[in-house]
Formats: sequence, C-alpha cells, structure tokens
Amino acid sequence: LQTPSELDRLRVVLVATRNPLNLGAAARAMSNFGVGSLRVVNPFDLAFREARSAVGRAAAILEAAEVYDSVAEAVADCGLVVGTTAIQHRDLRHPLHLLPQAATSILQQMGRTNVAILFGSEKTGLSNADLTHCHWLLHIPTGEQHLSMNLGQAVAVTLYELTRSAPPASVAEHPTASSDLLERITSALLEALELSGYTIPNGSTATEEKARRMIHRLAFDDRDAEVLLGMLRQIVWKLRIHREEK
Amino acid sequence: LQTPSELDRLRVVLVATRNPLNLGAAARAMSNFGVGSLRVVNPFDLAFREARSAVGRAAAILEAAEVYDSVAEAVADCGLVVGTTAIQHRDLRHPLHLLPQAATSILQQMGRTNVAILFGSEKTGLSNADLTHCHWLLHIPTGEQHLSMNLGQAVAVTLYELTRSAPPASVAEHPTASSDLLERITSALLEALELSGYTIPNGSTATEEKARRMIHRLAFDDRDAEVLLGMLRQIVWKLRIHREEK
Repeated sequence: LQTPSELDRLRVVLVATRNPLNLGAAARAMSNFGVGSLRVVNPFDLAFREARSAVGRAAAILEAAEVYDSVAEAVADCGLVVGTTAIQHRDLRHPLHLLPQAATSILQQMGRTNVAILFGSEKTGLSNADLTHCHWLLHIPTGEQHLSMNLGQAVAVTLYELTRSAPPASVAEHPTASSDLLERITSALLEALELSGYTIPNGSTATEEKARRMIHRLAFDDRDAEVLLGMLRQIVWKLRIHREEK
Repeated sequence: LQTPSELDRLRVVLVATRNPLNLGAAARAMSNFGVGSLRVVNPFDLAFREARSAVGRAAAILEAAEVYDSVAEAVADCGLVVGTTAIQHRDLRHPLHLLPQAATSILQQMGRTNVAILFGSEKTGLSNADLTHCHWLLHIPTGEQHLSMNLGQAVAVTLYELTRSAPPASVAEHPTASSDLLERITSALLEALELSGYTIPNGSTATEEKARRMIHRLAFDDRDAEVLLGMLRQIVWKLRIHREEK
C-alpha cells in the first residue's frame, strides 16, 4: 500500500453527484483504501453528509468533505487532473488511458504533486466543460463497452488499482504546474487572443474550452509554466497599450 | 478481457445477503465485467430481484440468479471454491491469498473447471460452516485492516482484478508534433516576444534557447501544435500592425 504521505496527495473529486448514497459509498471506498481527501462539486443534495451508507471512518471522510462551486476551484492545488469516463470511443480530445496504465502514471506524479481524479454524475458523467480541466482521461476496462459502472464501484475499483502495487521510485524533476497556474496561463492566452482579434470579445466558449484543453494537455512543469505566463503577460501588456493608443 | 467461455465458468455466490440493493449492485458489477452466473444462498429478502439498483443487463442477471438453500448445493458443480474475507488475521484454517495473487490462481483454474467465489453477509461475512466448503480464501488488501468493504464494491473490485490483465484496447491518439512544427512555433513565439518588448531585437541567444527548450519539453501533439501556431501568428500579425502604425 502507498505510504500515508503519498495518498495524502490524492483528491477524489465527485462532480454533480445526484445520489447522496453514492457519496457515502465513495467515502467508504476511500476509508478502505486509506484515501482521505474528498471534494464535492455542486452536489445535487447538499445534505449529502447524512448519507446513511457511511459509517465510522467513512462518515468522518464525508463530514470533512470540501464543497466547491466549480471544478476549477476544486482542482486548483493539483498538478495532475485526471477525468474518468465510461465511454471509450467517443470523440475524445484528451489522451485516454486504461486504469492499470493510468495508475502507474498517477502514482509517479503523486510523488511530486497533488493529483485529482474526477468522477462525473451518475447519468451523464463529466461534461465537456469539466473535461477541459483534465490533463488526460482514464477508463476502467469493462467487458461491455459503453456500459457505465456504478459510481461507488468505480471509485472503489480505481482506488484499489492505485493501492494494489507498490509505488514506483519517485523521479526527481520539477513539480508539474498547478491547475491554478495553468488557469492563469489560459486566461492570459485568451486575453492575448481577444486583443489580437483571434477571437471576438465575449464570443463563444468554444475557443476558451479549446485553449484550456490544450494548455492542460501540455506537460508543463512549474518552471516552464511561470516562464510562459511571464511571456504572455508581456504580450498582453503590449497589446493593451496599442489598443489604448487608438 | 477473458473470453466468454472462461468467464462462463465463474459463479459469483452471495451467501445470506441482507440488503437487496447489494444484490443489485453485485449484478451491476457482473454486467460491467462480463460475468453472468449469479447464485444466491439464503438471501434475507426473497424479493431481491426487484432491487432498484439493477437496470438493463444487470437486471437480467438478477432475474436469472439461482437461489439455493445451502452453500453445498450452490457450489456443487465447481472444482474450485474460494471464500472472501475482510479479516486477515483471525484464526484461519485456510490458506489466504491477497486478491492480485488469488486472481492468477483463479484464472488458471478457470481454464479447466468451474470456479465459485463466495461473498458472505454484510455484517458477519462467511460463517465457519460456509468456509468449510472453500479450498482457500482471498482478501482484498485494504489500507485499514479489519475494515470491511461494502459488498457491491468488493464484488466489483474482485471482478475487476480477474479481468484487468486483458490486453488493453489500442487507443488512437494524435501523433506528436514534428520538430519542424515546433521550430515554427518557437519562431513565432520569439517574434511575439520581441514585438512586445519582452526581448530586445538581436539580443542574446539565451531567451531564444530558453523558449526553444520549453517548447520542446511540452508534449505537443500535431493538432495542439497547429492550433498554438495559428494563435501565435495572429498575435504576431496584430503586434506588427501596431508597430507599423507608429
């Protein structure tokens, strides 16, 4: 099993969960596998902490769950954000890894940064907007494609896979950029795009989503991210001056 | 995933299950992982087939479940009977294997005989009398010893482990960006940096090298690289116009 300090870096993020019992089931799986950090984004039922399926340690996890209004806030301190999907062959704009291989990558990253794993709502899974915050997606290989798992079972299987093998030796590198930093890069890029006429002001969200997805797909470490952010801010500053001179 | 013929030899046997929802959850996990043979021994609620948690294929599995009065009858056609236990250190009279290793043995045996995996009741697990029918026991390694899993989640994790070693389906991804494309991005970025005053014209090569290294470290696929190149060219175009207007 993972050392406590490494599992402390894992955040289980449940987005738009409808059934409070599933939040309780997720908390129970977390208690079984030693993962304590539960984050909930826009739950259907704000009284979810009373879910009867959670007892003992699981109830404590549910009690301590942090509630957020947006995925962006829920993953702000995470250097890797992984979305889960039941759909293997839709037009995905993210790299997709099957759980066994995904777990290896997640464990490596957990050696140096916080990792969020997102689970979407029972009916529709993660939305396209949710997915823009993800670096890549994981899929639990089921016998029947397009057949989604129960939410609590999907959480249990994912955490089982993450703890079933010993952690690989950590690799000393720069830590990956936090989601907050990537978000600031995205904002600066979008402003530069608007100022340069690439996009129209208050235009469609398609470009915004495209840019955010692209920035998240790129493997930024914190150093590169800071450098690019500085570059973009300078470009934005110059473009703003030109506009004001007009 | 296992071939259908091999998974046809697996029987999931739920003994003295109290909550019908857990039978539904077990059926759903079975439908996810392509295991169809559910056997139920002395369920607390004989109306379990109406468990609302089961839909589609899972409902069909529940509908087809065979009900037995004794473990002996439920495993009569099986050459290997494996009991599951949450308790790792009680006075076990059976060999105990952790799930990853247990799955290897089960898969080997499934090549030549029917295999039953027994799950006990939610509160007490399998009784000593139930265990007398088992060849050996399996335990899902959880972080907290003596902390039992939810029944439906335990079934899901066990079936996941049995089917996880399947060859992964190939996932189509975009090819990585060519060096030529990365070089064009670097050039466009450098021009934008000069036009915006981030660098001075004909300045040191340090910034140029820094930008080139950064662009190469980012894991661009060809699609993202083309998108970013288009964005940068628009920004450069706008910055050039501003300069010429002066």
